[in-house]
Amino acid sequence: MPLITDLDVLDIRFPTSRELDGSDAMNPDPDYSAAYVVLRTGEGPNGHGLAFTIGRGNDVQAAAIRALAPHVVGREAPRTAADLAALSADLVGDSQLRWLGPEKGVVHMAIGAVVNAAWDLAARAAGLPVWRFLAAMSPEEIVGLIDFRYLSDALTPDEALGILRAAEPTRAQRVAELTERGFPAYTTSPGWLGYSDEKLSALARQAVAEGFDMIKLKVGGDLDDDVRRLKLAREVVGDGVRIAVDANQRWDTEVAIRWMRELAPHRPYWIEEPTSPDDVLAHRAIADALAPIKVATGEHVQNRVVFKQLLQAGAIDVLQLDACRVGGVNENVAILLLAAKFGVPVCPHAGGVGLCELVRHLSLFDYVAVSASMQDRVIEWVDHLHEHFTDPATVVDGRYTAPNAPGFSAQLREDTLNRYRYPDGPVWTEEGA
Amino acid sequence: MPLITDLDVLDIRFPTSRELDGSDAMNPDPDYSAAYVVLRTGEGPNGHGLAFTIGRGNDVQAAAIRALAPHVVGREAPRTAADLAALSADLVGDSQLRWLGPEKGVVHMAIGAVVNAAWDLAARAAGLPVWRFLAAMSPEEIVGLIDFRYLSDALTPDEALGILRAAEPTRAQRVAELTERGFPAYTTSPGWLGYSDEKLSALARQAVAEGFDMIKLKVGGDLDDDVRRLKLAREVVGDGVRIAVDANQRWDTEVAIRWMRELAPHRPYWIEEPTSPDDVLAHRAIADALAPIKVATGEHVQNRVVFKQLLQAGAIDVLQLDACRVGGVNENVAILLLAAKFGVPVCPHAGGVGLCELVRHLSLFDYVAVSASMQDRVIEWVDHLHEHFTDPATVVDGRYTAPNAPGFSAQLREDTLNRYRYPDGPVWTEEGA
Repeated sequence: MPLITDLDVLDIRFPTSRELDGSDAMNPDPDYSAAYVVLRTGEGPNGHGLAFTIGRGNDVQAAAIRALAPHVVGREAPRTAADLAALSADLVGDSQLRWLGPEKGVVHMAIGAVVNAAWDLAARAAGLPVWRFLAAMSPEEIVGLIDFRYLSDALTPDEALGILRAAEPTRAQRVAELTERGFPAYTTSPGWLGYSDEKLSALARQAVAEGFDMIKLKVGGDLDDDVRRLKLAREVVGDGVRIAVDANQRWDTEVAIRWMRELAPHRPYWIEEPTSPDDVLAHRAIADALAPIKVATGEHVQNRVVFKQLLQAGAIDVLQLDACRVGGVNENVAILLLAAKFGVPVCPHAGGVGLCELVRHLSLFDYVAVSASMQDRVIEWVDHLHEHFTDPATVVDGRYTAPNAPGFSAQLREDTLNRYRYPDGPVWTEEGA
Repeated sequence: MPLITDLDVLDIRFPTSRELDGSDAMNPDPDYSAAYVVLRTGEGPNGHGLAFTIGRGNDVQAAAIRALAPHVVGREAPRTAADLAALSADLVGDSQLRWLGPEKGVVHMAIGAVVNAAWDLAARAAGLPVWRFLAAMSPEEIVGLIDFRYLSDALTPDEALGILRAAEPTRAQRVAELTERGFPAYTTSPGWLGYSDEKLSALARQAVAEGFDMIKLKVGGDLDDDVRRLKLAREVVGDGVRIAVDANQRWDTEVAIRWMRELAPHRPYWIEEPTSPDDVLAHRAIADALAPIKVATGEHVQNRVVFKQLLQAGAIDVLQLDACRVGGVNENVAILLLAAKFGVPVCPHAGGVGLCELVRHLSLFDYVAVSASMQDRVIEWVDHLHEHFTDPATVVDGRYTAPNAPGFSAQLREDTLNRYRYPDGPVWTEEGA
């Protein structure tokens, strides 16, 4: 029986702050980074996962992943692959590490990286991309992936089964549709705060030319700038293209409402992260005040318990699942089912390092086996850093193509691992000096 | 001008799992630990702080504290002491580290440890214990300590000023009262799940004999056991002593309600941590169903934003502030003011490593300058590990005595640092083998 013999962790950082890619109202100078994990088996396929960070602290994130090694090293790889719920429960259930969350922050992201790496390993062993590996499971198997603790007041196993069974008979036609036509994307590339008006205009025009019917702008730095930039973007893209705006948690409730009312004449589609991701009640107040502008959040939502409350409270119109913030595929399957129960579309957060690569699997699975709907669903697309992955995400005519390679698409290229390793890779020792 | 020249971090662990002290429904075998930080100045006093953990992961916590060193080392000590809000803002505002929370989990606890160490340094320099150092500040200075981001829908600076000004004229009489009579305590020592009925009875009897009028039992493992243990404790202590129970997050909403209804005939005073600390709406549902049994939580509440919502929603009757979970004294001052605004008593979580030492300063300050009330206020007391501190907490006749030594009482003794250092101290290399 092949064993998981090693859990390797690498601190990989890209010097994105040297450009202004990724700049927003709360994150002026990110160096997009990954605490990258490889589960090594010797005989069978390895498993690859990562936690996305934005620079400093990536070493702390890597240390948290290393702290999980005793739960993983020495496990039988096929049994681990066959019961990913057991692995997830084992990691989440470490009673001493749990104190450091519980189920939030650095330790929870570490669990997510390891669980996702085990999904990569399992899907490779099965010869399937993760979205098809998941979509090949029965409703009962899918429900078996989920830890229902703290969920039962909003979603029971029976309700989850009902959702999955309703979609089951027509799964095959949606797999075929996705393979042929892909899944809708929107692009954030025009909208970073650090860009000039000229660059914004040019990139917005280019986005429409490339087939996108939705773009996103960062807001929250300066109100006059935001009004000017949104007006400009609206003029460039016309009325038929949705423009989302993203405040990256910058505001208190009252400021969010006031600020967005100034932007409203230019028809923003959603306001993303208007305030603290922890603040369910504030999101509810903002959503009530700003309708029909939608409220979206999720990239910093720590776990299923907070997503559950956002849905219970009617606080969000769009759920922005993140592949690397919560405890991995298992918890994200729970979140997809919660969203389906409450009828809220899931539009994943992407960008960063590898998020586009990973979340497409989750949205495709959502469409095939859970929501069975593309209505108001769209995956974020940021066109950078894909060249570092062995199975990069691709977008054609404004749509993600469905991945075919076995696994979860989280594997970084060997030369990337050598060049961008922090602090001793050549990108940091030579070029950065 | 003396500088903060070094930030030292030590991984200190006590092998408490060798006994069953500290065992509860979610934490069966904790090794109470501290990621311990010393801000060194060379000339002036040093500052001492800690993050409390329960064993594995204390190294990750220590790594997070080290990641904050660039914000601290090289600062002028007197200026840092004179503007602790600036230090706090600088640490919370690190835009790259913020991604790992934001304001929650390992990184936020690291900020708490460093901020608290700076308070220790500042109070030592002023020759005052932290509670008196705080209580010597004007209402305006106290409000100046607080980051009001995400609070303004529940507490404005003017409202905070109003609360502080109302208490100001009578501060001196409460300082005198505390110095003479101390502050009410309750004890958790009888109630750990690992204890036999005989040990529970003996310790409960002893608690009453020692002057406590409130004890606490851990529950949530097995319903029949809990009913038997609570009945037994009630028989031992009689009707005049309050018995709180603590489920350590074990239940979903419906289970919490059902379980507590079985315990209700034996008159539990409060139910602590009935479910996930992230679940504001579940706490509200539980509180509604179980009144007049009180609902308490806080030791795992990640920050002021979640406390704010618990108060806004009417979800808690008792707020259990923790000295080391949130971002230090500054955030805890905000939490005290929020509680005062909503009329909810603060009963701090203590025990662990150093929590009794630290929280007494916060409750005493609350009484002197914020709530000005002892009604329903009580500080947890767990009688272990105090011998490792240079200024240990003491309880006499069921009341905490007011600390007199300058600082925040977080300093560990030198021989403790040597003996319990993990993994190379003799407690771990010799006795543990």
